[in-house]
Amino acid sequence: MDRLIQFLRELTPEIEKRLAKLLPFADQRPETLHEAMRYAVLGGGKRLRPALTLASFLAAGGGNRAGVVDAACAIEFLHAYTLVHDDLPAMDNDAMRRNRLTTHKAFGEGIAILVGDALQALAFETLAAASGDKASRTVPELAKAAGSQGTVGGQALDLESEGGEQDPELIERIDKWKTAALIACCCRMGCIFAGGDDEKSARLGEYGEAVGVVYQICDDLLDFTEPKPASAKGASKSEAAKQTYPAAIGVEAARDLAARKNAEAKHAIRDFGREALYLRLLADYLLERKA
Amino acid sequence: MDRLIQFLRELTPEIEKRLAKLLPFADQRPETLHEAMRYAVLGGGKRLRPALTLASFLAAGGGNRAGVVDAACAIEFLHAYTLVHDDLPAMDNDAMRRNRLTTHKAFGEGIAILVGDALQALAFETLAAASGDKASRTVPELAKAAGSQGTVGGQALDLESEGGEQDPELIERIDKWKTAALIACCCRMGCIFAGGDDEKSARLGEYGEAVGVVYQICDDLLDFTEPKPASAKGASKSEAAKQTYPAAIGVEAARDLAARKNAEAKHAIRDFGREALYLRLLADYLLERKA
Repeated sequence: MDRLIQFLRELTPEIEKRLAKLLPFADQRPETLHEAMRYAVLGGGKRLRPALTLASFLAAGGGNRAGVVDAACAIEFLHAYTLVHDDLPAMDNDAMRRNRLTTHKAFGEGIAILVGDALQALAFETLAAASGDKASRTVPELAKAAGSQGTVGGQALDLESEGGEQDPELIERIDKWKTAALIACCCRMGCIFAGGDDEKSARLGEYGEAVGVVYQICDDLLDFTEPKPASAKGASKSEAAKQTYPAAIGVEAARDLAARKNAEAKHAIRDFGREALYLRLLADYLLERKA
Repeated sequence: MDRLIQFLRELTPEIEKRLAKLLPFADQRPETLHEAMRYAVLGGGKRLRPALTLASFLAAGGGNRAGVVDAACAIEFLHAYTLVHDDLPAMDNDAMRRNRLTTHKAFGEGIAILVGDALQALAFETLAAASGDKASRTVPELAKAAGSQGTVGGQALDLESEGGEQDPELIERIDKWKTAALIACCCRMGCIFAGGDDEKSARLGEYGEAVGVVYQICDDLLDFTEPKPASAKGASKSEAAKQTYPAAIGVEAARDLAARKNAEAKHAIRDFGREALYLRLLADYLLERKA
């Protein structure tokens, strides 16, 4: 695990610096929108998706990092937009995120909607600029992961099924679309930038989908076993009303499922060599993480 | 003008058919989201942006239409998303559009936000698929036009300046970003698909920006001189509170400005031959259109 911590300790500041540079500056018009975009992106976060993108890039053979770092930032912009929109009153209605006010609480609902919209456009602008000739492969990857059978579709199912009876089949679909699709996209994106072949890309996509599900189950386990105080969540919709594995099949069974998915992830990349070290460590890190 | 009417009469059904095919079907999961996406896109509309894209394509030399028709549909998806988000309660709070309920009134606010988000992703997915090797040029065009110094930036300024003193310099900026940026993008996009050079692309972009401003001024003139009945607008924010040329400089001066911009548009494409006929006719059509 020390190797992974070292990897993240070097990568995270590099990503933070690049995100800050790729975002429009707050003294450029429209200032409020730009300030709010920076607030939404630069307010912390684990930068897990960039880490998975870079770890997959290395696993697939590596090479010149410049393009893939910007592609990782593009995915992080996309992810940041989904958080801003998910927090809105018409969605999860969260007042706090990462110990700060959510974007709509800090800047108002209209600006928060626009922040998400502009971050999605910035994600595609950044990705296309980073991709050059590869844009015809990278842009569809991100667009599909972000679309109506990706993060947005998962959020739609999540929203519609709130308060309904817990349904493991539905939860599988929600977790895959809402969380795992974008994480699998990170892994395939890293492979494209390393010039990896379709076989490698498919294996890395399987790995990404499995660790994405692990990530979501562990997130739900944390919320289920250590619910946040009401003050930290504002008027947030009850976690219990959401479709989650811990609520549907119980804490132990959810933990078992996460462990099986972790094994699936490592199995998918079994033929990769030592270059896949960080992916293997990340898989375990995601399974074992605590609040 | 008969030539233009014939052009639009042939093009519009072709675009409608292609939009219907490119959209996810309503019997695919998540069904409600897909039904709402189709509602938002297929509920009429002039399909002006596809017309400008195709007219610019012809003006720049034309060629195989397949790619450019899909690119025009991509821009229409992008445009449709901005309408869905602009109508939201936190924005313009409109209940009706094109004589039907707005998307959030028909499907709820959460789904409407997600419809916009998914349509933006679909726009980039469609554009990249249509572009092939040209994706590295087409995707940044659309992303910039859609971003924080394009349609989203214009909407942010519009939102922030509501109720403030009318300011012609601010109105110029709002109109350029909110409306003209995407229309100029249509014109440059058509040029890219025709294989036109940078000089042609720049002239077509100037044309597009000018007719985009004409379009917005005439829209504001229609609202100003023939305000819609309150019943048609729901709880919509007052048009008078918005920054517009008719409110700022008066109806006659706004009409004069639109006429000057129309002349600018035609001047920008003065060196184009008869292939630019539809662009010239469209410029006049946009100046003279009635409710």
